[in-house]
Order: sequence, then structure tokens, then C-alpha cells
Amino acid sequence: MSLSALAGEVLKRCDLLATYSEEPGKITRRFPSVAMRQVHACLTGWMESADMSVRMDPAGNLIGHKKGTQLFSPDFLIGSHLDTVPDAGKYDGILGVLLGVAVVKALDGRRLPFGLDIIGFCEEEGIRFRAPYLGSLALSGRFDPRLLERTDPAGVSLADALRDFGLDPSRLGEAAYPAKKVFGYLETHIEQGPVLDTRNLRLGVVEAIVGQTRLWLRFEGKAGHAGTLPMELRQDALAAAAEFVLTVEQHARSVDGLRATVGSMAVAPGAVNVVPGSIRLSLDVRHRQDEIREEATAALLGQAAGIGRRRGVEFHADQSESFQAVPTDARLTGLLAAAVEATGHPFLRMVSGAGHDAAVMAALTPTTMLFVRSPGGISHHPDEAVRADDVLAALEVMVAFLDKVSGEW
Amino acid sequence: MSLSALAGEVLKRCDLLATYSEEPGKITRRFPSVAMRQVHACLTGWMESADMSVRMDPAGNLIGHKKGTQLFSPDFLIGSHLDTVPDAGKYDGILGVLLGVAVVKALDGRRLPFGLDIIGFCEEEGIRFRAPYLGSLALSGRFDPRLLERTDPAGVSLADALRDFGLDPSRLGEAAYPAKKVFGYLETHIEQGPVLDTRNLRLGVVEAIVGQTRLWLRFEGKAGHAGTLPMELRQDALAAAAEFVLTVEQHARSVDGLRATVGSMAVAPGAVNVVPGSIRLSLDVRHRQDEIREEATAALLGQAAGIGRRRGVEFHADQSESFQAVPTDARLTGLLAAAVEATGHPFLRMVSGAGHDAAVMAALTPTTMLFVRSPGGISHHPDEAVRADDVLAALEVMVAFLDKVSGEW
Repeated sequence: MSLSALAGEVLKRCDLLATYSEEPGKITRRFPSVAMRQVHACLTGWMESADMSVRMDPAGNLIGHKKGTQLFSPDFLIGSHLDTVPDAGKYDGILGVLLGVAVVKALDGRRLPFGLDIIGFCEEEGIRFRAPYLGSLALSGRFDPRLLERTDPAGVSLADALRDFGLDPSRLGEAAYPAKKVFGYLETHIEQGPVLDTRNLRLGVVEAIVGQTRLWLRFEGKAGHAGTLPMELRQDALAAAAEFVLTVEQHARSVDGLRATVGSMAVAPGAVNVVPGSIRLSLDVRHRQDEIREEATAALLGQAAGIGRRRGVEFHADQSESFQAVPTDARLTGLLAAAVEATGHPFLRMVSGAGHDAAVMAALTPTTMLFVRSPGGISHHPDEAVRADDVLAALEVMVAFLDKVSGEW
Repeated sequence: MSLSALAGEVLKRCDLLATYSEEPGKITRRFPSVAMRQVHACLTGWMESADMSVRMDPAGNLIGHKKGTQLFSPDFLIGSHLDTVPDAGKYDGILGVLLGVAVVKALDGRRLPFGLDIIGFCEEEGIRFRAPYLGSLALSGRFDPRLLERTDPAGVSLADALRDFGLDPSRLGEAAYPAKKVFGYLETHIEQGPVLDTRNLRLGVVEAIVGQTRLWLRFEGKAGHAGTLPMELRQDALAAAAEFVLTVEQHARSVDGLRATVGSMAVAPGAVNVVPGSIRLSLDVRHRQDEIREEATAALLGQAAGIGRRRGVEFHADQSESFQAVPTDARLTGLLAAAVEATGHPFLRMVSGAGHDAAVMAALTPTTMLFVRSPGGISHHPDEAVRADDVLAALEVMVAFLDKVSGEW
């Protein structure tokens, strides 16, 4: 089968897997779920047809193994995730798994010196249990067993949900790969942003996954009657928050590569005729360099406090969580860039603004990532798309990459 | 009974009426409700003790009549409303009714040339049926019968709710006063704002009730991933809305007497990691001069559209409603101011930023309003308060005012 035909098959397979959903008419596939079982069943069939041995690991990841010529060599891993956000598109995660299967088919019986594991991670989006990366955390030996007690909105614990799925939660630790059994991980994923599309490029080579700080903030002013409270006596929490939103935007625009977003805001009391007394809002700050992210976060919190002081409005930072930036492996990423160059596709060295399993896997093994253009930058939405030519380009690059990895073997 | 004792009695009566509530531990009294029946029963007793004849009119207003010496003279009306917002304070509305009863008691058997009607309006806040001024609209002959079909959140129509209360909705029109049977209306009400308190004044004489425009606006940008969407490619609806909030504040501060408020705002999708795509917000604009309010509203809408154009965010004005400003009657208001001067209390001639039954009653008969200081400007809140000395001052003024009206008779 030609690479072009294989790329076409990948797209058809994305269409089929999109039909396995928890919600009719939408793509919603959390883990664990019946829809995920269906995806496992389908993917198992495809992996076996590609001469792979297939297993579900104790965490619920589906792994197809393709033997290499050297029986005791460590394996190379290719993967992405099989779960989706609610009302998702067809390609986020799935595309990288199916391209992994296509790469094995593209080898056409030819065996590499090392074995290949094609991994469909069970969970990356963190929807059902508000905890992302369950699959890659387990596989990289970093799963926190306390998460097993976490419950979904229906009150079902992760432990019970795993049991319902046919897994034994007490054996989840056995999903961890011994580090010496693997020597690298490649994840191909849609960009989920507009950068490649804007520059009219098919592919991106990821040099780092950004670090992220999430904050939950609050401005506490004083509610009052919109008709009776003169402007000069107001302590309007929304006006303070509005000033902060513009400060965040301006600051992020002034620092190269910084992204800062106020994504949620709740106004209380929230009536047309009441001056807002209290505002809760979120702030998301990302940069590939942790110091820059941390400096920006501190600067923005300082500016928020200053806005509050000037306006007689209290400012509180209620909660925050941070994730460090993760650079991809320089050597593997160099080979990936060389593979793209070899295929003749112009590409961009870039930073991933979104989190990925690759950021978790980097703690286990050298890791790199390939981005495929997202038309319009649309993701986490039914309109999410990929272009067939771009999928073909990604497949060419992945095959060339494995050749380069073999060449260095 | 001295005026001072009467003022103390008014406050005790406010305490007692506050216990008639739909919600335990809170003051919530909509119309119709069992709590309103209790207030009617209690108030009927007090009115009868003050030698008034009491009736409930076909709209559910409670009216106590005190005869004058001239049998066929028109009546003078004193009143305010008996309903409350949810989780209200003790004085909004009620204080004006109880001061009316106290004025009758203060006359101590002395009869004025004209009759007095002390009115407890059934409904002013517009909570249960999202329609304010039901009592004063009916009494002034401006009730729109189509409102009878409006339903509350439980699906009960106003017509059915009136029937449950023992009223015949088909007779509601009979609540209207013939214009020649009345010659004036006085409403005493807490200020519900901080102006008097800030100036350390007990009382305000209301020269006008502001006009008001309420708008429901929308900014439509483009949602996107907070990590993958570069700052310069964003069409952030919240940033546009934030710019508008500050524009509103700045514009209102620059025009004397203008009040403009963004009181509610809803952010969609509203997730910490998603650039906001759509914002719905309200805008409330008030001024005593309709032209200034209309000019300001037009200017703000123009600025919103300009913000949208600059940011690639669509701006829509979805809905609006306007109420004209209502000046109080110059002659009656002059007598009221003279009455305050006669009592020696310094006072402020001012504008009411809130709507009141007086604004509706002004269509029926010459109307004036007396404001009592709201400590801290707090209203529509359990902390709403009045000072005993201020209530006494209001009572002195109301008695002096009736003397002046009699003097001009």
C-alpha cells in the first residue's frame, strides 16, 4: 500500500472511530466508557492486521507491539491519546495513534533493529475525573494512587470505573515501563492552533511544551444600586477586573512568546441594575521558559493588586497550579527535523502551547513531537480538521524519522 | 403620642413586618403571597386603630382612608410599597407606608380640610412576574391587562395568583382612581444610595426620578485555545468587553449626573484554558435629562461598535428598553422643601436614581418625594438601615408638609 493510500486510510479510520461516542450526534469519549471499549476493539483489529501483538496494559492503555530484529533491544514508542473532550473533533489524539499504526504498515514487513510500541493512551484530556494524562502518567510510572479515590460528577470513583472497565486498580502500577526497556517516544498531534496554518506550513517540529500557571483570582468591591450610587463613590469590582483583563492582554503582547488569558469570569450579584460587587476570574499564563512565565505571573499579580488599591477594591489570588515547561529531546528532535528536511516539506520549529502526553513521557524517555497543521487553528470543536496532504506529509516524515533513528542505531 | 414616640413606633413596626416573609431567616415578600396577606392583616389593624377605614382595592393595594372636614373634596395620597426584593432589608417601601400611618396618628384627631389615603402598594419591585409597579399602575389607571397572562418562574399566571389572593382579575381596572378625586401624592422612601450619608444630611427633596435605558449587548469574537493561539491572532470577546466596561465608566464620569453601569456579564465558553469567544453584558444608563441619557447611550453604543471593529469582534445590541425621566411636581415639591426648611433640618434637593411608585403616580396626580438617609447607602440587602433621628425628622417634615398643603387649600 502506498503512503498516499495509507494516509487516506488513516483519515477514513478517524471517521470511523469518531462514531464511537457517549453522546449521539457528537464525539464525546471519556475514559473509562463503552465508547472507549469500542475504539479498543476496532484498533485491536487494525493492529493485529498489521502484524502487531496487542495488549491492554493495567491502566487501560492499548498497546500494539511490532517486533524488531534484535530481540533484546529496547523499544521505540509512538503514540497519542484515544479519549476526547465533550463535543470534540475527529483528530485530536486519534490521528497520532492511527499514524503510528500506518507507520508499521508502511514498513511493509521490513523489520527495524528495535521493536515498536504503538500506544493508544486511555486518557489525556482530564474530563471525567478532572485529572489529565492518566494513561501516560501510569505508563511512565508517575501515577499517583490517590487519584483512584477521585470521583466523577456522578460520584463514581476512578477505582470503581477502572473495575467496571475490567481492570484491577491495585495492579495499575504495573503499567509502568522499565526505563531501560524504551529508548524514545514520538508523538504526532494536530497543532490545535493557527500558527502553521497562518504561515501556510504543513508540519511543525516541537522544541518544547510550554509551562503553564493557572490562577483563580477575585476582586471584591462593593455592590450597589446602579441608579443611586454616584460614579465617584463606586467600588466596582467589574471595572477593576476589566482593567486587569486589558493589563493581561497588553503585558502578554509585550513579551515574546508569552500567552496570558482570562478565560472565565463570574460577576456577582450580576443584575442589570446592580453595580458588581464581586468578580471571580481565571488567569492562564504560558511560556516555554519557566522564568519568563513566573516573572510575568508575578508582574500581573502585582498589577492586579495595584488596580485594586487604586479603586478601593480588594484583590485576592485564591488558588494556583503550575506546570514546568518541558523541552523535547534535542537529539531526537534533531533527527525529526532532519527527517522533515529529507522529505522536502518546509516546516517550523515551534513550541507547543497545549499540554500533551509527550510532556509526561519526557520524564521516562527521550521524547519528540511532530505537529500537523490545524486548518483555521480549530480544535476541541466538531469543526476540527486536517488536510489529507498534511497527513501524508506527516506519515512520510514519521517513516523517514524511523529510518534516521535506525541509522543511528 | 409625641412625634418622637411615633417615630420609634414606626421602627418597631418595620421590625415586626420584616418577620412576614416567604423565606425563613430572610425578608422576601413578593406579591401575591401569604406573607403579603400577613402584612395586610397587621397593617389593617394599625390603620383601624388610627381611626381609618381600610379596604383592599381590586389590585391588591391596601388603602386606609382618613376623612377630611370637606366631605366632597378630593383626597391627598401618601404611600409606598409593601413588597420586597428577595433577601431584602426592613425599610425599602414599608417605611413610607408606616410613616403615612404615623402622620395620621400625629394629627391626633385633628381633621384636615381634605381626606387622606394612606396606600400600601402591593407590588413595586417586579420580582415574581418580572414587571414592576403593578400596584401604582393599577391605581393610576395604566395597568396593561396583557400582564395578567404573564407567568412566574413556577408557571403560575398573574391572573391565577390574584385569584388565589382572593381578587378578581377582571375587576382590576376598577382600582384606578378618578383623577379629579385626588389632588396630590407624597412618597417618603429611603434614598437607597449614599449621597445623603456622604454629605451627612438626614433628608432629601426629590426633584426628579431619572430616566433609564437598559440594554442587552453582545460581543462575538472567536474562541480559541489559550495555549496555542498567539496573542496577535486573537479575537478575544472578553478583552473587547473589558475595554467597553472602562469606556462606560470613563464616559459616565465625564458627564455630570450620568450613571452608567455594566452590571451583568456572561463569558462563553468560560473555561480557564479557552480564549473567550462570546460575551453577553448589560448596560444601564440613567440621567434626569432624557436628552443627555439618550446622547450618552448613543455615544456608548458607537464606542462599543468601534472597539469591536478595531478588534475584529462583532458587536450587537440585542435588546433595549427605556423609561423617561419624571420630574416631581414643582408646586408640591416647593411646599415639601419649605416644610423641611421649617423644621430646621438641612437637606439636599436631589434626583432619584432609582425608580419609585411616585414616577408612576405622577401620571395621575401632582407628585413629590421625600428621601430619608440610607446609612452606608446600603439597600436591597439585610444590612439596609435607617437612623431613628432621621425617621423622626421625616415625620416632622411630613406633618409640616400637610400643614402647608392645608394652608394653600
